[in-house]
Amino acid sequence: MVQGASRGIGLEFVRQLLEKNNKGHVVATCRNPDEAVGLVELKRKYTERLNVLQLDITNESTIEASANSIREKYGSLNLLINASGVLSIPDVLQPETTLSKVQKSALLLTYEINAVGPILVIKHMWPLLKVGGGSGTDREFAVVANISARVGSIGDNGLGGWHSYRSSKTALNQLTKTIAVEFARKKDPIVCILLHPGTVDTDLSRPFQRNVPQGKLFTREYSVQNLLNIINNAKSSDNGKFFAWDGQPIPW
Amino acid sequence: MVQGASRGIGLEFVRQLLEKNNKGHVVATCRNPDEAVGLVELKRKYTERLNVLQLDITNESTIEASANSIREKYGSLNLLINASGVLSIPDVLQPETTLSKVQKSALLLTYEINAVGPILVIKHMWPLLKVGGGSGTDREFAVVANISARVGSIGDNGLGGWHSYRSSKTALNQLTKTIAVEFARKKDPIVCILLHPGTVDTDLSRPFQRNVPQGKLFTREYSVQNLLNIINNAKSSDNGKFFAWDGQPIPW
Ligand SMILES: NC(=O)c1ccc[n+]([C@@H]2O[C@H](COP(=O)([O-])OP(=O)(O)OC[C@H]3O[C@@H](n4cnc5c(N)ncnc54)[C@H](OP(=O)(O)O)[C@@H]3O)[C@@H](O)[C@H]2O)c1
Ligand SMILES: NC(=O)c1ccc[n+]([C@@H]2O[C@H](COP(=O)([O-])OP(=O)(O)OC[C@H]3O[C@@H](n4cnc5c(N)ncnc54)[C@H](OP(=O)(O)O)[C@@H]3O)[C@@H](O)[C@H]2O)c1
Repeated sequence: MVQGASRGIGLEFVRQLLEKNNKGHVVATCRNPDEAVGLVELKRKYTERLNVLQLDITNESTIEASANSIREKYGSLNLLINASGVLSIPDVLQPETTLSKVQKSALLLTYEINAVGPILVIKHMWPLLKVGGGSGTDREFAVVANISARVGSIGDNGLGGWHSYRSSKTALNQLTKTIAVEFARKKDPIVCILLHPGTVDTDLSRPFQRNVPQGKLFTREYSVQNLLNIINNAKSSDNGKFFAWDGQPIPW
Repeated sequence: MVQGASRGIGLEFVRQLLEKNNKGHVVATCRNPDEAVGLVELKRKYTERLNVLQLDITNESTIEASANSIREKYGSLNLLINASGVLSIPDVLQPETTLSKVQKSALLLTYEINAVGPILVIKHMWPLLKVGGGSGTDREFAVVANISARVGSIGDNGLGGWHSYRSSKTALNQLTKTIAVEFARKKDPIVCILLHPGTVDTDLSRPFQRNVPQGKLFTREYSVQNLLNIINNAKSSDNGKFFAWDGQPIPW
């Protein structure tokens, strides 16, 4: 399952999961399936293997409905990628350049989308992931991969700014760690990891690409290849850890 | 200024700041000044030096009003302690014991009170802290001390649970670090630190004190003595750092 699959990194995960395997189903979720042209196109080619469901991460009933639909159709999950996320929304959300511009509404909205949403998705998919474990894969466990961001690292924060986005990703890291601890204690066959995709050429990064050093702006293809490599080679000792696209650990 | 001063650790900060110095003013803020019996009592003894203002951290206009009142009366601040915080609220908020019990409303409410609130207070007090710096103290800078909690540490999270509280404090840590970076870059005479008070005998910890090992439940007096010691001896290199009551750094 790829959550947040209409565009960008999420859509590229769906594409590579379908292209690199010749069996297995992919559930792709997004807010507006009819407008998700990339998914509509993939659906034409992979009619059987791709299942597109409507899911808005800010609306828990759509998360529950997706879980019900997956349970009825497949009965289990062995991979969940939370790829949705926001940094800016025209006329609504602008990454803060100074404390003077910090607004409660922006902090709460970003937190709801980037931190709360992915956790609610895991909450509802948990029973399906427990059933699935590593079945049908080379792994012995299911993987939950939450797409975080290096700017969510407190230890690595030397620049400041982007208060809402940073703190939402930091909270996502803590929530993911908290869940990983519970899964391990209960011996559930699930490993949770946090991934930083690098700076990737998508709508999210577009307004901020000017400051990216030459060669450091990745294509979606390259980033997702690397992230899938981490996911496919995940070990149970990776549970609750935070990795960059190249497999290097990122400090909290 | 002590924000969140009606009870517990905040009230004890006010008491010790008044008792240990024989000059200087203390602004104590709380949601319901008339019901804050501890403050009412202190006000009787320290009529001139103690100023009690109404401030609800979830209502930004009360924060602004407090800033205006402090500006008119004193013109500056040289210490700001954000002591307010919630872990549980009867019938409203219960620390989560498992992912299945995680609710969006609890995550958002705890985030608003524990992470967003203190940051909005700093936003509005910033100009006053810049004017104040270390004047009237032995320091060369003003201090902002945000009371965080060890359970907000991701690196130290070995137990899981308490999702809402943990992630709100982790986000507070990131937001404080982000602000500290900006203050340092602008060469403002302000040092921001994060403090863990230990497990302290207050209303907040009361429902959870059963599991505290013998000798590890501190009195408010002891904890605040130690925290004031850290504040009074703060160095500019402490800016953006997270310390336990005994001065030991806590990992992010
Ligand atoms: N690009 C980078 O450089 C970079 C760097 C670090 C981390 N990341 C992280 O990588 C992830 C993917 O970002 P991206 O670069 O691919 O961004 P993107 O191209 O802007 O895509 C964002 C995705 O999130 C979805 N989304 C937003 N709000 C949603 C909601 N309420 N419910 C469901 N889906 C929602 C969007 O769906 P709609 O089409 O419906 O809006 C879209 O599919 C994010 O978590 C981001 O924070 C990206
Ligand atoms: N006690 C511990 O063991 C412990 C451990 C680690 C960290 N901490 C942290 O230490 C700080 C102080 O906690 P405590 O133990 O002293 O707890 P406490 O006795 O329960 O006091 C909490 C304080 O926060 C105030 N508050 C709550 N919501 C507020 C709001 N919306 N606006 C303004 N003030 C609000 C309360 O005011 P009202 O009287 O109006 O409710 C009260 O003064 C908190 O940040 C807590 O997370 C405590």
